[in-house]
Amino acid sequence: MTVDRARELDEADPLAPLRERFLLPPGVVYLDGNSLGPPTVDAAERLAAVVTEQWGRDLVRSWNVHRWVDLPHRVGDRIAPLIGAPAGSVVVGDSTTVNLYKALGGAVDLWRSEGHRRTAVILTDTANFPTDLYVMGAVARRWGAEVRTVEPTGLEEALEAGDVACLALTQVDYRTGRLHDLPRLTAAAHQVGAITVWDLSHSAGVMPVDVTSADVDLAVGCGYKYLNGGPGAPAYLYVAPRLLDRFSNPIAGWFGHAAPFDFSAEFRPAPGIARGRVGTPHVLSMLALDAALDVFRDVDLDLVRAKSHSLTTLFIELVDGLDVELVTPRDPDLRGSQVSLRHPNGYAVVQALAARGVIGDFRAPDVARFGFAPLYIRHVDVVDAARTLAEVLESEAWRDPELARRDPVT
Amino acid sequence: MTVDRARELDEADPLAPLRERFLLPPGVVYLDGNSLGPPTVDAAERLAAVVTEQWGRDLVRSWNVHRWVDLPHRVGDRIAPLIGAPAGSVVVGDSTTVNLYKALGGAVDLWRSEGHRRTAVILTDTANFPTDLYVMGAVARRWGAEVRTVEPTGLEEALEAGDVACLALTQVDYRTGRLHDLPRLTAAAHQVGAITVWDLSHSAGVMPVDVTSADVDLAVGCGYKYLNGGPGAPAYLYVAPRLLDRFSNPIAGWFGHAAPFDFSAEFRPAPGIARGRVGTPHVLSMLALDAALDVFRDVDLDLVRAKSHSLTTLFIELVDGLDVELVTPRDPDLRGSQVSLRHPNGYAVVQALAARGVIGDFRAPDVARFGFAPLYIRHVDVVDAARTLAEVLESEAWRDPELARRDPVT
Repeated sequence: MTVDRARELDEADPLAPLRERFLLPPGVVYLDGNSLGPPTVDAAERLAAVVTEQWGRDLVRSWNVHRWVDLPHRVGDRIAPLIGAPAGSVVVGDSTTVNLYKALGGAVDLWRSEGHRRTAVILTDTANFPTDLYVMGAVARRWGAEVRTVEPTGLEEALEAGDVACLALTQVDYRTGRLHDLPRLTAAAHQVGAITVWDLSHSAGVMPVDVTSADVDLAVGCGYKYLNGGPGAPAYLYVAPRLLDRFSNPIAGWFGHAAPFDFSAEFRPAPGIARGRVGTPHVLSMLALDAALDVFRDVDLDLVRAKSHSLTTLFIELVDGLDVELVTPRDPDLRGSQVSLRHPNGYAVVQALAARGVIGDFRAPDVARFGFAPLYIRHVDVVDAARTLAEVLESEAWRDPELARRDPVT
Repeated sequence: MTVDRARELDEADPLAPLRERFLLPPGVVYLDGNSLGPPTVDAAERLAAVVTEQWGRDLVRSWNVHRWVDLPHRVGDRIAPLIGAPAGSVVVGDSTTVNLYKALGGAVDLWRSEGHRRTAVILTDTANFPTDLYVMGAVARRWGAEVRTVEPTGLEEALEAGDVACLALTQVDYRTGRLHDLPRLTAAAHQVGAITVWDLSHSAGVMPVDVTSADVDLAVGCGYKYLNGGPGAPAYLYVAPRLLDRFSNPIAGWFGHAAPFDFSAEFRPAPGIARGRVGTPHVLSMLALDAALDVFRDVDLDLVRAKSHSLTTLFIELVDGLDVELVTPRDPDLRGSQVSLRHPNGYAVVQALAARGVIGDFRAPDVARFGFAPLYIRHVDVVDAARTLAEVLESEAWRDPELARRDPVT
């Protein structure tokens, strides 16, 4: 009966045809797109073509002939609509961590340029992704700032202290799937004169994000999760157009120069978002991301969000009553596109699922995560996953000691 | 007669079989490997396979199954012998500029950790690559250091001032091809307690480099020039083993953590060269570099250097007497693997050559550069290039006003 209902939902799903554009192995229910999205058919073809028809044929001239030089901007302009940013405000390159470094360092400098003399406080929450916390610490040390970390529910109160220079958060908690109220927290930060830096890695691509209407200052995000850009795809940096003239990239490199090919000895930052660039773009990795973004063309993000709700709600409904604790908020408006379940033997549970073709992942100490990427996950996959989980739990298959010795799914 | 001699040299060349391992377009003499190396046959195949057989089939599990997690170290250990570094001292990732930022910031911190209290002076020369100068300026501002720039011939004298914290140089001048005496300058820097940061982008892969015997402290280099790793290939960072425990990477990220997958809130730098890592590695770009390095397996770098001498000497001999000024040192021991020629209409000359299938490039205001990569350039190519140049100069083909309007070769 559940399968019939799932099939009906899939038949009525306007996004259903997109699944064919992905290379997914047979017999696998892939619920780890929040860690690494699968390749698109386009990406495979594009990479083969770039080696023979661009790099191999036109060699160094490809920088101009195939406009590799502009690639970080062209790909950035394709990510922009996914986060509600205007053209010319997003640039692609480097890793998410390096972009966080630029954004956080740049944010402290922006705040100081407004005349503040007291110690810059970077406010974040305990649920932030570790690399965000690490780079925040590094920036704080180098910039003479201070990191203040509070519980996710305590952010608004912490902002009221009035001394915060920069509010730096990840919109969707990578562990629990809890969704922050980005517009509200951004407004609260602005009330006290703080600059906002949002990490959109776990939200962009599975829900509408609107940095413009929320008036976000700076944002970064990852290319290899819900954007399906490939392992270690370059990340992106958003700088609000109103700040572009004042934003200073702490890592001054030749591609962020106003005229990189003048080879001038003096650094002069490029106008616009190009100043967010650093070195030579990773063209091959970036072309795979560019190809993956083809899938998003003409996709209505409200439909994506509606399907995400439908998938995660169905999964929660089906696992209710199983011997696991739901970590993710039950209210769909308060979560991203993942469902996390707590089980004391979470690691072995995830391994037992993987052995049965259901790929989720594990986050210490006891969380099993399942990401539902609406572009390629169907309701029937949700039913499969939930049934397999029920079977693993009921049969106590996770007790097999061999599972604990397996490599993590990652 | 010259062609006959060139053919003889090519027939006797022990490296000649390597040329077949590259994808080179027919009818082109490619003398811009110092800007972007051509693809290897392996790289094209490896990239196609990684999409279908790794990313597409094993998805997120590839991080363990295909050891993507270790890729920056495995590729680093393959670059290590090219620069005389031991295994475990080179890591691959990010761009050259980002690695320079880590190395320069790390160098100033190392120097300070030795108890120096005076202003840290970063000494470099006017001929350094622009991105090196830009990032030096950025590090100086953030670290409260000072950049001192002198003529390349004035470095030893400048070191004698005794206040230098860090000597930061590029071994081969990207514009003229002039080769610095790396062992001697490193020793002179150490005499005054300075830390050395060498950029090997224009030297590694075309000559033996030995950071160990020269006792170099830190080094970086580029993957896409003579290493043929592809457009925007990840770069590398070397840290002398004796400094690894003390080296602090200014960009703290999760892949530089001692236990990235513990997702701990506290940053704890990884032991060894892993602390030079930052974010998720650009796997696709890195696999192309890995494949390209196959070509270097069992290649004797002394033979590479000898062939480089032979190619550049022949080119200089053939263009002697033409209406150009040789910018590159005539003594082969004082140059890298490129020859640069000055001509008042250098831009148009390079374009006229490109139109005739000889690809060099142009660096303002008047320098035409020709890189001779010994792994795939033959002596007959040198003869072709020199003859074509003679023809362009004698016919004054560069006067065609259309050439000046063409996009740069880059």
